[in-house]
Amino acid sequence: MLSIEQAQEILFKDTPPMRVIRRPLQDCLGYVLTEDVVCREDHPSFDRSMMDGYAVNAADLAQAPVTLPLAGEIAAGHTRVPPLKSGNCVSIMTGAPLPPGANAVLQLEKTKKDGDSITFLESVKEGNNVEVRGNEAKKGQVVLKATQIIRSQELAVLAMFGIPEVSVYRKPTVGMIATGDELVEPEVEPEFGQIRNSNGYSVRAQVIGMGLECDYLGIARDDKDDLRNKIRLGLAKYDILILSGGVSAGVYDLVIETLREEAVEFGLHKIAIKPGKPFFYGRRRENRVFGLPGNPVSSFITFEVFVRPFLGMMHGRRSANPRIKAKLKTSTGKPIDRVHYIPGKLSYPGEFVVEPIAYRGSGDMISITHANCFVIVPIGVSYQPGDIAEIMMMGNTVWSQK
Amino acid sequence: MLSIEQAQEILFKDTPPMRVIRRPLQDCLGYVLTEDVVCREDHPSFDRSMMDGYAVNAADLAQAPVTLPLAGEIAAGHTRVPPLKSGNCVSIMTGAPLPPGANAVLQLEKTKKDGDSITFLESVKEGNNVEVRGNEAKKGQVVLKATQIIRSQELAVLAMFGIPEVSVYRKPTVGMIATGDELVEPEVEPEFGQIRNSNGYSVRAQVIGMGLECDYLGIARDDKDDLRNKIRLGLAKYDILILSGGVSAGVYDLVIETLREEAVEFGLHKIAIKPGKPFFYGRRRENRVFGLPGNPVSSFITFEVFVRPFLGMMHGRRSANPRIKAKLKTSTGKPIDRVHYIPGKLSYPGEFVVEPIAYRGSGDMISITHANCFVIVPIGVSYQPGDIAEIMMMGNTVWSQK
Repeated sequence: MLSIEQAQEILFKDTPPMRVIRRPLQDCLGYVLTEDVVCREDHPSFDRSMMDGYAVNAADLAQAPVTLPLAGEIAAGHTRVPPLKSGNCVSIMTGAPLPPGANAVLQLEKTKKDGDSITFLESVKEGNNVEVRGNEAKKGQVVLKATQIIRSQELAVLAMFGIPEVSVYRKPTVGMIATGDELVEPEVEPEFGQIRNSNGYSVRAQVIGMGLECDYLGIARDDKDDLRNKIRLGLAKYDILILSGGVSAGVYDLVIETLREEAVEFGLHKIAIKPGKPFFYGRRRENRVFGLPGNPVSSFITFEVFVRPFLGMMHGRRSANPRIKAKLKTSTGKPIDRVHYIPGKLSYPGEFVVEPIAYRGSGDMISITHANCFVIVPIGVSYQPGDIAEIMMMGNTVWSQK
Repeated sequence: MLSIEQAQEILFKDTPPMRVIRRPLQDCLGYVLTEDVVCREDHPSFDRSMMDGYAVNAADLAQAPVTLPLAGEIAAGHTRVPPLKSGNCVSIMTGAPLPPGANAVLQLEKTKKDGDSITFLESVKEGNNVEVRGNEAKKGQVVLKATQIIRSQELAVLAMFGIPEVSVYRKPTVGMIATGDELVEPEVEPEFGQIRNSNGYSVRAQVIGMGLECDYLGIARDDKDDLRNKIRLGLAKYDILILSGGVSAGVYDLVIETLREEAVEFGLHKIAIKPGKPFFYGRRRENRVFGLPGNPVSSFITFEVFVRPFLGMMHGRRSANPRIKAKLKTSTGKPIDRVHYIPGKLSYPGEFVVEPIAYRGSGDMISITHANCFVIVPIGVSYQPGDIAEIMMMGNTVWSQK
């Protein structure tokens, strides 16, 4: 058996080459920049007032209190601004450009107005309440680096610097097939021996939660023609094909044989993880195929450990699920010969504390709904209450503060 | 001035009544359940094999090794299963229903096959390798509680229990208006005195990142007709109207006056937060209006502190941004008379460490792109290196492990 780290190393080296695309700025949230963004002009490009008040030459207020004649008004957005004559002042609004000759702003509250005369109660230093041209960025400066993920703050910077179309890495497209003669869709009443398909929904949600698109292609029966048709469609239309189920003796062989006939080569065998041992991985040119175990909990966990970081890396994201250490509330049970991912409930009453959740086998998704993380128990280890264990967060872990 | 907590209390008490809607299961990710989900049948609804092997009556293997005649095969999905005769065995696949009369499964690896005779090398306990009917949930049991947010694991449970349409809280709709004569859109080359609109992009991204929809309604000029038209449209079409900018003396009055004429009442005045003091809030029947300061950093922070939790509560989510404590790498500068939210870079080299980011005024979004959290500095406090400070995560904080 491969260790989880060995399996991840093999996988992550095998991500297909990334493609660069250009997208409209407003559609770039969650994408990754492919090139540095260089500032083409000083920012701000003019001296801006940061307050409502009066623009002055600081030297004219040296003997404050002092009264100066008011020579006009400048609002934000004024593009033609006459120079300020020495010994005069001009009313100015937050965000408005300073007139040539002015070098400071005194706030409204520190002045008195009497008709066209303004009395300044205090003096002011040069540059006070002014955002000077180039203060935030100078022409030629790199303001965003390639490989940066675009969040709302990066969108703001791209907008500020006039980049309405952005070079980013294309996101992979994902198709998902559930397999198994025992499956029916949620709207169907199962007969004896049948169960409802849940992985079709949860895996798609795991993918969509990453900001990717995922089409669910339905249930493939344990039948070569049905499998082949769905697999062909999946390989033709999507970068990534995810299958779930198909691990029982005869069926597993059928799935693998069908994939091989469609020129998929296999890259991973069994992995020392519990649950999730039967996870498999294959490739065909730029297609990648993941086989998740049919048991819902195994499917959920192998997605988080292998597929989520892989899909992230395919569009330039380097992050696996974040990890921290936390104090255990209860023990983790008997040591086993695989790394055990136990669903856990993480909270933060001043420090991170985690409660492992006893789940009843790898079909028990009900228990997983009480979890927001996994406790990673190394091979042969049994943690006791108070021990510190490594925790892997789930996709969007939010913990309780209590 | 109100404290942040006072302001939040006023705000969060003022969320409009929630509405219940029904949505197809596959479109429920990120929604909140309005009612308990009760199991209508035992789950699983039949005894299932957890392994590939042979179904037996455990008593027949008491004297193992023992050889039994093979009386057939049951695959997953078989719905008609003849009873197992005492002293016989039947081949069974993972996920297949146990025949009446069988009560255990022995794995393939612990057997030998010779034609129609199977030799069992070990005995087996009753229930071994069988997931017994009702193991995961009993009929009548609550499997998901009202107020639970639907993540991928909850989707799986809803699918398993046959709920193709789900009662959830409706998500609010959001419209966003930027205001200011100084603004141009990113594709336009600004003249002297003009800057590019960035809040229109970043605020929309903050909303969209929550799984909500947000329409950007464009820039309203500092002109009553333009303001009124956009505000009317915004109030008519959306639950939530977000305005950004319009805080300078004359313009602020114009925005507030226009909103009042459209029957918006105001609920909050100035708040002791830096940056973000000019934030405002109003209501009109079930509409809610947020006024974010025009400076990008102030806009970003007031969204995180006030608007994000408000929008969450409007569709049943109780979580504000998660908070933790972290050790400071550098000092936080002079104490001030407002709570100071300083952008920070959080990492986890074995414990949480945070580096406050020196930002050059509230227009400096470039600095915010280096941040993944905020350091919350209380009024009058100056943290020194090594001090422990409270940290507010951003929307989807991912920290470096180094």
